[in-house]
Amino acid sequence: MSSIVLGVGNGKALFTGTSVAPDEDLVRFADPTDSIINAFDLSVLRGDGIFEATTVWRGFPVSLENHLRRLAQSAKLMNMPEPNIPAMTRAVELVIDQYDDPEPGPMLRIIVSRGLDPDTGVGRSADRTPTIFIFLDAKGTLHSLEPITMASMTRGYPSDITARAPWLLNGAKTLSYAFNCAVHRECARRGVGDAILHTEDGYTMECPNSSIVARYGGDFVTPDPRIGILNGTSQREMFAWALQEGHKAVYRKLPIAELREADSLYMTHGGWVIPISEIDGRALVVDTAQIQAVNDAIHSGRTHDDALGIGPTGDYE
Amino acid sequence: MSSIVLGVGNGKALFTGTSVAPDEDLVRFADPTDSIINAFDLSVLRGDGIFEATTVWRGFPVSLENHLRRLAQSAKLMNMPEPNIPAMTRAVELVIDQYDDPEPGPMLRIIVSRGLDPDTGVGRSADRTPTIFIFLDAKGTLHSLEPITMASMTRGYPSDITARAPWLLNGAKTLSYAFNCAVHRECARRGVGDAILHTEDGYTMECPNSSIVARYGGDFVTPDPRIGILNGTSQREMFAWALQEGHKAVYRKLPIAELREADSLYMTHGGWVIPISEIDGRALVVDTAQIQAVNDAIHSGRTHDDALGIGPTGDYE
Repeated sequence: MSSIVLGVGNGKALFTGTSVAPDEDLVRFADPTDSIINAFDLSVLRGDGIFEATTVWRGFPVSLENHLRRLAQSAKLMNMPEPNIPAMTRAVELVIDQYDDPEPGPMLRIIVSRGLDPDTGVGRSADRTPTIFIFLDAKGTLHSLEPITMASMTRGYPSDITARAPWLLNGAKTLSYAFNCAVHRECARRGVGDAILHTEDGYTMECPNSSIVARYGGDFVTPDPRIGILNGTSQREMFAWALQEGHKAVYRKLPIAELREADSLYMTHGGWVIPISEIDGRALVVDTAQIQAVNDAIHSGRTHDDALGIGPTGDYE
Repeated sequence: MSSIVLGVGNGKALFTGTSVAPDEDLVRFADPTDSIINAFDLSVLRGDGIFEATTVWRGFPVSLENHLRRLAQSAKLMNMPEPNIPAMTRAVELVIDQYDDPEPGPMLRIIVSRGLDPDTGVGRSADRTPTIFIFLDAKGTLHSLEPITMASMTRGYPSDITARAPWLLNGAKTLSYAFNCAVHRECARRGVGDAILHTEDGYTMECPNSSIVARYGGDFVTPDPRIGILNGTSQREMFAWALQEGHKAVYRKLPIAELREADSLYMTHGGWVIPISEIDGRALVVDTAQIQAVNDAIHSGRTHDDALGIGPTGDYE
């Protein structure tokens, strides 16, 4: 029992079939300060793996089904084996069971690498079983509801690239996050809190590790993920809240120029909806009571079931 | 002494100043099958680090100076501390000293991660020292001079993006290689050996883990790295060979349509020049004697000194 729980997954049990192995075969626990990863693992050598992250709020892993479904989608885009979702769910529960800290909202992360590198001597004879670990951390950087400022930056791609070039892995949540980290360093240089990326032809994409939602009057809008971005989990929880409150919730191509004119903007990730107070120097009003209400709805599970059925529909524009 | 040597670098001694610490303070050796990396290391969680790779031919690390200079350039683009090049050079020598296998050309890789993730509980109190390891591997996949086939694929970027968007990290050799791995899987699907990437406006870039050189008559041409690609190390060795043989060696913007019309094409990486037998279905003649001659010149060190002074000159087009 601890403030930082590190579970090491059994790659075969968590990535084969749909039956759930006994608890003791799913995950073992390690001291978080120990070295548990081999230097020839593809996560280390190539950032070649996938992950998901969310908040566990008073024991409730926010949007877990949608995170695991997205993990499966990332695995597919990466030509990795298919995760066993019931077994992964149980493994997450076992990790949560080990948690013992007063912090109500530790961060959960699920990391899956492709395994040992078969092009190395150490990995050559390995059987390409994924390397999996799941951690719950009360002592790292946690979310806050402080309003943040934001700058727009180009992602360098045209808006039609994803269908033409699936090898760019747009829409997969991979461990190759050096670019995402670089955007955050660029934000620090500019003195802003985060960035919203757009295509070369001027369509809104996503933030380096978040989705974006805009409000125009009573309508909530987010970019259609088929532009080549992640299908936001917390964004879907927010859409579920908006629909429950009688608002409209719309997926579409969203010009960055239009984003800059929104009545309100929200950054959504890891089980949180965070207010944006400024975009490209234009100040935005923050409704603190509304922000609290939507986060409460998400953390209490009120939006959970509805969020499972939300997503873009129809043909892509 | 072994066929796979795994050296664990001392991050402070290898990334501070220019003096060289005693051998025992530079690197320690680990069993390659042991786990030596913490799960909260940024290489594992974010692919947030840099690397270099080359061949050690009969004890001679091919292009080592140019690799270490490029490592320093990658560190700069990634806002990482500056490597201590004399200390890194000595660390590589110490790793080579431990090698004992009949294979004359094992692969050397130098991996530098940003260290423990300061946004995690385990990394929070760490002092942001890079995590470094250096391995020499005779038992993994080694280079061959078998001619390879190649297909061209878009990188998704316009040719002017690098100066406009440095956060894309174009030109840095990072550990975030999931895209590069995905291109190789796309090659396997198409039944070709490797890929040459080009910009959206049709200029040649590089291969996922190699540079490209084209021959037109007696002239050798490679894309100017300022388009946002790596400054090729083996490519510079090949240019040194070409100049020694009385040929011309040119850096310029190279349209992919023109690349397809080359008299010969060469993929260069890791201390090797590998002949290309086909691009986008067009067969190319392979001069086996020439290929042997250029690789011999590189491996014997004949091109080494000249390669140090080669690179693009003048303003970028």
